[in-house]
Amino acid sequence: MMKMDYAISKTVNTNFQDTIHRLTSGLKDEGFGIITEIDLKSKFKEKLDKDFRNYKILGACNPKLAYEAIQKESHIGVMLPCNVLVQEHDDGKVEVSAINPMQSIGVVGNPELEGMATQVSERLKAALDRI
Amino acid sequence: MMKMDYAISKTVNTNFQDTIHRLTSGLKDEGFGIITEIDLKSKFKEKLDKDFRNYKILGACNPKLAYEAIQKESHIGVMLPCNVLVQEHDDGKVEVSAINPMQSIGVVGNPELEGMATQVSERLKAALDRI
Repeated sequence: MMKMDYAISKTVNTNFQDTIHRLTSGLKDEGFGIITEIDLKSKFKEKLDKDFRNYKILGACNPKLAYEAIQKESHIGVMLPCNVLVQEHDDGKVEVSAINPMQSIGVVGNPELEGMATQVSERLKAALDRI
Repeated sequence: MMKMDYAISKTVNTNFQDTIHRLTSGLKDEGFGIITEIDLKSKFKEKLDKDFRNYKILGACNPKLAYEAIQKESHIGVMLPCNVLVQEHDDGKVEVSAINPMQSIGVVGNPELEGMATQVSERLKAALDRI
């Protein structure tokens, strides 16, 4: 697994569509539902008439943790949901990347959120491990 | 307008629903379409059986800028779209908050994205000014 400051990433051996299914299932096992799905390939075709590779952004949300986070920081919604990106590179390799909440939530600077960021981070990593 | 590190925020004089309409229109004028909409009030009711105040997260995306950003940083999708939050506080006041892309995209540490982050930041501020 590759770790950037702002995301954790993993190249997988499954095809694009299977990866989406396995990721969705892995996230569910870790308590996250997918509440948004953005298909940038079709968006770029529709809006810019550009052909683009497979590139989907899934918004993962654990309602209980989101509810707790908003009690502690009313503006935290600008950081929700936690995005997980699935993209197929030009060489056919499929890569999954999850936002690193330690970094994004870290920016907020609210110590009450730190434990939660750690927990979300560990669960997202576990979901990627399940693919 | 209130400026936190991670968001810019503004209390408005319009009601919750009018604010959503005016914000959507203001974002459109600045080149952003709303590509996701999360109603946390209904989500919390459905998933946790909790009553919550009005709280919606709109995902704003300028397809041209998003396309350019991905060419420069293939994992930037974990930061997309730019979230704008509309919430009604318990005292009835309605507040709009946009993510600060200078901060979120700043985390990425790619100098090629800096000009873009400035541009997105200015456009989001302008959309808030239009409400």
